Amino acid sequence: MGEITSAKTDGIDLVVFSELSVCGYPPRDFLEFEDFISRCEKAIDEIAAECVGVAAIVGAPLRNQSPSGKGLFNAAFVLADGEIKQVVKKSLLPNYDIFDEYRYFEPNREFEVVDLNGIRIALTICEDLWNIEDPLYITSPMDELMKHNPQLMINIAASPFDFAHREARIRILEKNCKKYNLPILYSNHVGAQTELIFDGGSMALNSNGQLIHELDYFKEAASTFKFDGDLKLVGEGKKIDSRSKIERIHDAIVLGIKDYFEKLGFKKAVLGLSGGIDSAVVLYLAQKALGPENVRTLLMPSEFSSDHSIDDSVKLSENLETEYEIVAIESLFKNFQQNLKPLFRDLPFNLAEENLQARIRGVLLMAVSNKFGNILLNTSNKSECAVGYSTIYGDMNGGLSVIADLYKTEVYELARWVNRNGEVIPENIITKAPSAELRPDQKDSDFLPDYHILDEILTEYIENRKGPSEIMNMGFDQTLVNRILRLVNLNEYKRYQTPPILRVSKKAFGMGRRVPIVGKYLC
Amino acid sequence: MGEITSAKTDGIDLVVFSELSVCGYPPRDFLEFEDFISRCEKAIDEIAAECVGVAAIVGAPLRNQSPSGKGLFNAAFVLADGEIKQVVKKSLLPNYDIFDEYRYFEPNREFEVVDLNGIRIALTICEDLWNIEDPLYITSPMDELMKHNPQLMINIAASPFDFAHREARIRILEKNCKKYNLPILYSNHVGAQTELIFDGGSMALNSNGQLIHELDYFKEAASTFKFDGDLKLVGEGKKIDSRSKIERIHDAIVLGIKDYFEKLGFKKAVLGLSGGIDSAVVLYLAQKALGPENVRTLLMPSEFSSDHSIDDSVKLSENLETEYEIVAIESLFKNFQQNLKPLFRDLPFNLAEENLQARIRGVLLMAVSNKFGNILLNTSNKSECAVGYSTIYGDMNGGLSVIADLYKTEVYELARWVNRNGEVIPENIITKAPSAELRPDQKDSDFLPDYHILDEILTEYIENRKGPSEIMNMGFDQTLVNRILRLVNLNEYKRYQTPPILRVSKKAFGMGRRVPIVGKYLC
Repeated sequence: MGEITSAKTDGIDLVVFSELSVCGYPPRDFLEFEDFISRCEKAIDEIAAECVGVAAIVGAPLRNQSPSGKGLFNAAFVLADGEIKQVVKKSLLPNYDIFDEYRYFEPNREFEVVDLNGIRIALTICEDLWNIEDPLYITSPMDELMKHNPQLMINIAASPFDFAHREARIRILEKNCKKYNLPILYSNHVGAQTELIFDGGSMALNSNGQLIHELDYFKEAASTFKFDGDLKLVGEGKKIDSRSKIERIHDAIVLGIKDYFEKLGFKKAVLGLSGGIDSAVVLYLAQKALGPENVRTLLMPSEFSSDHSIDDSVKLSENLETEYEIVAIESLFKNFQQNLKPLFRDLPFNLAEENLQARIRGVLLMAVSNKFGNILLNTSNKSECAVGYSTIYGDMNGGLSVIADLYKTEVYELARWVNRNGEVIPENIITKAPSAELRPDQKDSDFLPDYHILDEILTEYIENRKGPSEIMNMGFDQTLVNRILRLVNLNEYKRYQTPPILRVSKKAFGMGRRVPIVGKYLC
Repeated sequence: MGEITSAKTDGIDLVVFSELSVCGYPPRDFLEFEDFISRCEKAIDEIAAECVGVAAIVGAPLRNQSPSGKGLFNAAFVLADGEIKQVVKKSLLPNYDIFDEYRYFEPNREFEVVDLNGIRIALTICEDLWNIEDPLYITSPMDELMKHNPQLMINIAASPFDFAHREARIRILEKNCKKYNLPILYSNHVGAQTELIFDGGSMALNSNGQLIHELDYFKEAASTFKFDGDLKLVGEGKKIDSRSKIERIHDAIVLGIKDYFEKLGFKKAVLGLSGGIDSAVVLYLAQKALGPENVRTLLMPSEFSSDHSIDDSVKLSENLETEYEIVAIESLFKNFQQNLKPLFRDLPFNLAEENLQARIRGVLLMAVSNKFGNILLNTSNKSECAVGYSTIYGDMNGGLSVIADLYKTEVYELARWVNRNGEVIPENIITKAPSAELRPDQKDSDFLPDYHILDEILTEYIENRKGPSEIMNMGFDQTLVNRILRLVNLNEYKRYQTPPILRVSKKAFGMGRRVPIVGKYLC
């Protein structure tokens, strides 16, 4: 409530917070607890009591008093004169990808504007403005609100980050401004909640749809605007964000790690360094988020590890000033093989022995995690998650998966960006051929096509929802496409048990992608 | 399509299949693939071509031709004369617990009856009839359909099993029959899809709401009915199911295991036998589902294992005629401790060493799983899943979690039921004090209250959505309630990575329960 107090001091009329700001977004099934809703109501009353001489708009769940329909609305509370002045309910409930709003909320069907100090405001909540392209809903709240001659639009949102979402938001807001000839204040949520990263970037557009100011991304921020028929920025220079795709992804992941640790009350991370690019990039991101003193690594060579895997990891650790320890796994690997000999007899070395090594490493990392209260960071990338080129209960372990929404080619892009001003990640880590090093002379390319081809096919299937013949028609080999798509579907069982993955694309593995495990489609 | 051909031979007019029978339920995000929808359309055309001299009702997705709204409807296709005669769309889209229908489907808003051989049928899909108690929706399709004077109700469903759901279905159908004074044919899906078990039990009720016949539960079945103003069963004796709660749970889990293996193309299972009741019950269920020749176990004693843990497991394996092998973990445990000594130094034995043992066992089981192509069955129960009394990447491993929707007290109930005609599970397994045996003289009761109390508190919180003060007001100790609820919420991070759990209650961990990991509620 600090913002409300200082707004009062500064003579500001209205402070706008984000969607469901009282309880966080998404509160998920906590919303099914009467007790949780009561606590939200209590919080609203406390905030309202502060709103004397200043008004505020805050988001919170609202009980539905009607005997039919869902029990709650997703609402915006207008607080002024120490009380709740008006409540606006969300009409369009996103229920795709990571969104589950119709699970909890009844859609609004009644429309009225908010009258504040004589200004008529069309107040909407996030998705309410998004029916302006490819309409997913049969009503558009702004069309209804226009009947009441509003002078200004305000939209409170909880719009999660993906690397292209800023442009989508600006486009949607611009279209609304132009269509309704109104300026808009857009207030977005900021902070990460497990896999979802809310990037902030609240903004104001004038009635021509021109972006007049963007608030900071990836951190809490406030700006002041004056309304006199259109919106004017008060007291600071106009700012438009210019981060590149990779820079955004970097900043988003750093925030994602930071908030995951802070919100769980942890400080320190542990991860395994293999000498490969994935763990190198994760180590870089973790030390940026947590500080080098809070990240430790294990180097766990086996008989199949190349010399450079240790040398490169040591060099990386020195560059990043992070602590490392070396625990060779040869004796453990031999010991397991001896213990399993009565069962395995003379069966040849195969996947079982490969996975065994990855799992021994997983056990060592979890032992350190448990002993020292460090969260294990998972280092899988999206390409290997997709085709199942990873060991469940081995290298798939972790409390948080840091780069599993980045295809391998994007991990390379990010590594190059990290090195843009000089070598941070040793060049050899970036240039050597990727390998799991679980048997002699193994290379990723033994099993997988070139990552550029693989990642294109995966993007068409995972992000763009293209089927096999559509992908083949783009010029990819039929046998390869069938094999890759089959691998993706067959490995759903592994992904079911993956740690939460920081989401940076429009379609990440996790809560936003829900696929049957036993489904026969393409299997 | 065998049913359609034989119906034709038998002179039957109409064959009724279940909801989304063409693609299985729930198809989840496969529905977002144009390619998948095209395959469903092709299947419908093929089935329609068979429908000459007989009509059929089958469930499948239907494209929404309108420019606004979701892209699909959940539909019932009436097939006759070799073509699609009529299509009825679902109006009420369940979007709670395990259901996500509004993720994909637009609700229907137009109502008409089906005219078949001069009989006016009110055809609805599953949820469409369920708005008759505590209405979750603002419209009731049958109220609309009554305007067209139907003579018969048909409802096609994909209603998943929980141990009390049969009674709920009968109650809902009875209320509809009475309210509208119409008989009903209810056709439900059968077979398991990963965690969801569809139990069949299609049924017919007359216009007084009396149940006149139930089809078999837990297997495919067909019965014939004659309609002459009311429904009469043709050619077999009236059957009403009389299974007890535990018997249903048993049959459901056996079907769940069977279908999981069959649909994934696997035959054999492996699991760890600890000498405790959980793994004993899972072994019993697995050998019932897969045959004793298809289930193998590992007995993995440590220095902390009691003698009876091996003896009891051997006796159980003999009773069930399942193969077992003993792999002691002492040397591996010592080896890990030696390797970790440079890191752990002289820090005391704690959770890290306890989990280490569970993880060594997990690695051994996964090695066998990988080497022989067996699916590892997880043996966790719902009580320990709830409070996190389990080791992630250790005893939480598995492709399928068999009894993790049964509280510990229910596992005991099931074990007693298994032994109802004589000892199958050795009595000592049932009567001894539960222990994880990960340090000297450990007992579950060192950490947890009596399971009867624990399970009651958990049921109120998990199934009944009661908050802390409501549970305390039922007479439970405040400190205990706070501690248990906090443990449940803190351990969400572990459950995120749990294997899919066969759902037998109205609120299972998994897709039907969606809770934030970093949420601060009660933490």
